[in-house]
Amino acid sequence: MISAAVMPGPERMVEVRGFPEPKMEPGAVLLRTLFSEVCGTDVHLHHGRLLGVPYPIIPGHVSVGMVERVQGDVAYVDGGFVKDGDLATFLDVHETCGKCWFCLVAKAPTRCPNRRVYGITYSADEGLLGGWSEKIYLKPGVKMLKLPRKVSPENFIAGGCGLPTAIHAISRGSIELGDAVAVQGSGPVGLCAAMLAKLSGAFNVIVLGAPERRLKLAGRIGADHVIDIRDCDEEERIQRVLSLTNGRGADITIEATGVPSAVREGMRMTRDAGRYMVVGQYTDAGNVEINPHLDVNRKHIDLKGCWGTDFSHLYRAVKLVERYHDRFPWSEFITGFYGLDEANKALADVEKLKVVKAIIKP
Amino acid sequence: MISAAVMPGPERMVEVRGFPEPKMEPGAVLLRTLFSEVCGTDVHLHHGRLLGVPYPIIPGHVSVGMVERVQGDVAYVDGGFVKDGDLATFLDVHETCGKCWFCLVAKAPTRCPNRRVYGITYSADEGLLGGWSEKIYLKPGVKMLKLPRKVSPENFIAGGCGLPTAIHAISRGSIELGDAVAVQGSGPVGLCAAMLAKLSGAFNVIVLGAPERRLKLAGRIGADHVIDIRDCDEEERIQRVLSLTNGRGADITIEATGVPSAVREGMRMTRDAGRYMVVGQYTDAGNVEINPHLDVNRKHIDLKGCWGTDFSHLYRAVKLVERYHDRFPWSEFITGFYGLDEANKALADVEKLKVVKAIIKP
Amino acid sequence: MISAAVMPGPERMVEVRGFPEPKMEPGAVLLRTLFSEVCGTDVHLHHGRLLGVPYPIIPGHVSVGMVERVQGDVAYVDGGFVKDGDLATFLDVHETCGKCWFCLVAKAPTRCPNRRVYGITYSADEGLLGGWSEKIYLKPGVKMLKLPRKVSPENFIAGGCGLPTAIHAISRGSIELGDAVAVQGSGPVGLCAAMLAKLSGAFNVIVLGAPERRLKLAGRIGADHVIDIRDCDEEERIQRVLSLTNGRGADITIEATGVPSAVREGMRMTRDAGRYMVVGQYTDAGNVEINPHLDVNRKHIDLKGCWGTDFSHLYRAVKLVERYHDRFPWSEFITGFYGLDEANKALADVEKLKVVKAIIKP
Amino acid sequence: MISAAVMPGPERMVEVRGFPEPKMEPGAVLLRTLFSEVCGTDVHLHHGRLLGVPYPIIPGHVSVGMVERVQGDVAYVDGGFVKDGDLATFLDVHETCGKCWFCLVAKAPTRCPNRRVYGITYSADEGLLGGWSEKIYLKPGVKMLKLPRKVSPENFIAGGCGLPTAIHAISRGSIELGDAVAVQGSGPVGLCAAMLAKLSGAFNVIVLGAPERRLKLAGRIGADHVIDIRDCDEEERIQRVLSLTNGRGADITIEATGVPSAVREGMRMTRDAGRYMVVGQYTDAGNVEINPHLDVNRKHIDLKGCWGTDFSHLYRAVKLVERYHDRFPWSEFITGFYGLDEANKALADVEKLKVVKAIIKP
Repeated sequence: MISAAVMPGPERMVEVRGFPEPKMEPGAVLLRTLFSEVCGTDVHLHHGRLLGVPYPIIPGHVSVGMVERVQGDVAYVDGGFVKDGDLATFLDVHETCGKCWFCLVAKAPTRCPNRRVYGITYSADEGLLGGWSEKIYLKPGVKMLKLPRKVSPENFIAGGCGLPTAIHAISRGSIELGDAVAVQGSGPVGLCAAMLAKLSGAFNVIVLGAPERRLKLAGRIGADHVIDIRDCDEEERIQRVLSLTNGRGADITIEATGVPSAVREGMRMTRDAGRYMVVGQYTDAGNVEINPHLDVNRKHIDLKGCWGTDFSHLYRAVKLVERYHDRFPWSEFITGFYGLDEANKALADVEKLKVVKAIIKP
Repeated sequence: MISAAVMPGPERMVEVRGFPEPKMEPGAVLLRTLFSEVCGTDVHLHHGRLLGVPYPIIPGHVSVGMVERVQGDVAYVDGGFVKDGDLATFLDVHETCGKCWFCLVAKAPTRCPNRRVYGITYSADEGLLGGWSEKIYLKPGVKMLKLPRKVSPENFIAGGCGLPTAIHAISRGSIELGDAVAVQGSGPVGLCAAMLAKLSGAFNVIVLGAPERRLKLAGRIGADHVIDIRDCDEEERIQRVLSLTNGRGADITIEATGVPSAVREGMRMTRDAGRYMVVGQYTDAGNVEINPHLDVNRKHIDLKGCWGTDFSHLYRAVKLVERYHDRFPWSEFITGFYGLDEANKALADVEKLKVVKAIIKP
Repeated sequence: MISAAVMPGPERMVEVRGFPEPKMEPGAVLLRTLFSEVCGTDVHLHHGRLLGVPYPIIPGHVSVGMVERVQGDVAYVDGGFVKDGDLATFLDVHETCGKCWFCLVAKAPTRCPNRRVYGITYSADEGLLGGWSEKIYLKPGVKMLKLPRKVSPENFIAGGCGLPTAIHAISRGSIELGDAVAVQGSGPVGLCAAMLAKLSGAFNVIVLGAPERRLKLAGRIGADHVIDIRDCDEEERIQRVLSLTNGRGADITIEATGVPSAVREGMRMTRDAGRYMVVGQYTDAGNVEINPHLDVNRKHIDLKGCWGTDFSHLYRAVKLVERYHDRFPWSEFITGFYGLDEANKALADVEKLKVVKAIIKP
Repeated sequence: MISAAVMPGPERMVEVRGFPEPKMEPGAVLLRTLFSEVCGTDVHLHHGRLLGVPYPIIPGHVSVGMVERVQGDVAYVDGGFVKDGDLATFLDVHETCGKCWFCLVAKAPTRCPNRRVYGITYSADEGLLGGWSEKIYLKPGVKMLKLPRKVSPENFIAGGCGLPTAIHAISRGSIELGDAVAVQGSGPVGLCAAMLAKLSGAFNVIVLGAPERRLKLAGRIGADHVIDIRDCDEEERIQRVLSLTNGRGADITIEATGVPSAVREGMRMTRDAGRYMVVGQYTDAGNVEINPHLDVNRKHIDLKGCWGTDFSHLYRAVKLVERYHDRFPWSEFITGFYGLDEANKALADVEKLKVVKAIIKP
């Protein structure tokens, strides 16, 4: 039997259950899980804040493991074939159909209506389709990459889902050399966004967040300035950003908080004709009032939502961890490892911001 | 003495006053006004809804006239020199400094803090710097174009300031061949946006507005579908747009209403990963609630504010009136000519939507 | 037995051969061919100018037909299922893998190394994988669209492969409202490019080509000016374009000739800081000398190659034929129908420019 | 009398001449020159390879100095007023008119036909309008910046004109996080391009150049790989780049050589659907043969020329030297200081590649 941590439904405790070995379809791969992660979305899942989730589910959407079985010839996206015993591989768990209007005409695959995500939109009744499990079943067609030699499984999972999410936002944000970038939020997505902004040419990266531990890490990975949001109210935060940007506001602001009120605050700390990326609003936490004249039209702003990730973002994430394996303190993103039977504690720690990132180690 | 219609202050009646002939600086041009216009902004000015306006002012920001005097050599932007008696000329009345950070680094001249606009941010005490006047004084440096032979002054003023404003929005909107475009509002900006969307490759242009006269005109200049906003509420309007766009929503929606609540409505009638242009919110008419999860992040939307116009938009406007002088019923945009002493009636007619566009003919 | 016209090898006559009914895999569709086309690429194939072609082949890459058999549930991209007897359908014959670096990371599917094209890179030994055949076998995964009611099979094939090819070029060319566009070449791609440039907002479309019949058609579908290339040499052609564009050159020039020397000529008729699209160089017809200082660096030009088409271009092509079914003289693109046994004559007529477009009607 | 080094004409020796103190127009500034530079363009000027140069000239287009006199109120672009004794200032020496079609409609100011450049297109007969002079006369309207405290005049001139030139190219090149960038040439522009590519998110920067001294510097400022062009021929160089980029070629290649044959070589070392920036072809050094099928159309390439710089590039250059004043070995770009009377030697040393950058210190 294979053990997996199952979330039976909203507001119910996660429990470890046993599953039989999966039957392998042609083109499928079975991974022995090394690490999976607990991200903010898992907390939302626990509280039933996402619609259409087919509980019971095995959470864990980004994971890393070792190949235990391959059924037939399966190719890595970047070339070469998947082999039993490959030390580490990882997976694109956002399946898009590749044949609908959104995939083919709009070229917006993260809005593909047929998109399925491991750990979120698959039921535990359909199999081992989530990372909080000793083994993960990669259905035929899941896109895979072999971890490069310099990418340890620990460093890969430290980037986790926050890194490709932030890569997507940075890519849509089009940073110019020398830009000032404000990042709202210092969770995994915010921290990664700050790191990426600096790597993409920003000269002045300002992180607004809490608590100290996260802000300290922000400073180590690229933030030029950190603002502890507990020290000042909305108006003061805006003034601080203005004063750090020659009175104009940030050229680009990236929202990574999930808090609706952050949106207007972020628009206001962005300079006229600047860009504002909304990347943290993954559940419906209510509305926010904006002023269409002051915040949008007169400000001549570009505001962009940024949903999910596609394979290119995951690919660039792996390349980044490889390229800068020794420049950033990857291991410090991880503040706790949890066994399958400790998943409830992991969820609680993430919710209370006790950790930067909690890792499930089955 | 030169007569001009002066707006003495907020909520005060416009009155005709006499002004002396201006002293001509080197590089200045004096125009004998043929037509000026009354646009929604003039109504806002009348009610004191714009900040920092140096009343008393001579309203009228887009105008057309005949050259009466030129002081020295003044070149048209497109080549050739301005000559006394040139049949018709027009002007870029949005002066930007060309030497500040916004002009030179951000390349966002409509957000130049030194920008001055004829008819809005110049006081009548500074001279004949507005179009509701027998003559207009073009200060040195105001960019001028000679009207092409096929552009009658009437047709040019029919486009008025709505046409370059819409050109700016369409340019930022990046229409792809075959797109569905929804336009909220059927005033001069909305009508022009509908026309331009069609000319730019949209296959399905939907105009939401009122009253009948404007919607009829919308149909004649490019709208494939018109929706009378008085026939249905917000939810029904959204449903109608969805049903006209294969259930997905418009690829691009253009807001040209000035009504805050239109903003969320417009976001909701835009498809996932679509674009939303806010171009009508020229005064602070209050806030609107949006849902950052549903309307922005999950929708993966691009929302852009679009402020003012620069010379390129005015240039393309003139080229458009020239190119399609016989394809569109330009004269039907104009629903009334008013003398200087009828300016108050013109303002009232515009405010009550009695007209599409009211023209001042000094 | 099913008859198909087979091209046995370079410089060999096309001959009609019999094929057995294909075995239907799950997800496959069998089309009864209504029309296929003969394009310039087929002439190149006949002369062996493309590398790696697996002769013998059944030519014909864009075709239209009626569904004769469906194996299981097959969905149209735009919704709904393929049914026996569907009056007309058409196909995306450019199969891309959807799982390689070019498809997923570079997002350049037309450069997917696994891309296969019906009528070009499939051998007749692999089945009925080309349009010059009574029936076409659509392998599982080929993306299909149902022809809209207003799109007759004749009009669809009149657009043929030239229309999506031109749509791709126009899309990469980013026409601004009011631009002047020069099109080099008046074959199907050039004519379609001229039509699309006008529909996309160009005010001044100049077509350089021959002979009269094609230039006349150019005028009917959007060209403002036509230049017969037989009337003037390279320098004169450049001068004529300059004189039609205020001395500056075209904002955007589109090459659709396949002649290497056209490339430098086209760069020279493009204005400084303009765009040049190379879309006609589908075989290696030799080199051309350019001057990197004059033609590229000092000109500050954007030059873009444009290879193949993806599904979005085909989709927009169908939408265009639907939207403007009664505005353009689609049938005039077709200057001859040929049976399978007349394929050699069709090839000869295309090569001698006797026709605009030759259609195979099995 | 003020001494300046004057280039009397093509192939004539530079000589030091005396000039009277200039008369100050309102808005003018007089700088006491601290440093000016000798760049490849000056070598071209010496050999008469640029057209329309009004010899005699005072060369030196990018320079830095101390304010000696200001006539009236002159503002810095970034705020504040120019004051006598300001320790160091620098200047935008590319004057564009701001009122022609290229400036206003095409928004391509570096192609403004009225553009004048200090040290190149002004005659010595017009005044002290070049940097190889004890003093430089800044005409009214020249855009100025005060050097930030952390930018020493030495470090600013080390960036010189190569840095903004490279910033322009990088900005047009749109580097994505993780891209592989090949740079052809290891002169000041090439070295700066390599530095900027890394700062903009490239993970793999390959510099092809010579001699050792420059390649060593390339390695210190961001190059991951250097290829000594003297070690291998064109085919081998292409193969080395391919082997360093997973067999695909560089995502973006930047040409900074001035050698026409480099252009095809660079296209061939760029991956399919990649970008190629031509930024080094500043004089007409002859033609190059390209293959429109293989190098352009089938490669689906974006090729961009990149001419001159505008103020934004100079502004970002200063910001970069400020931000990374202690990260890069700026002083190592400078390999020799020369007095006005040593200008001929400086030119010779630059031409023989004896130096990375030669500085004139009047």
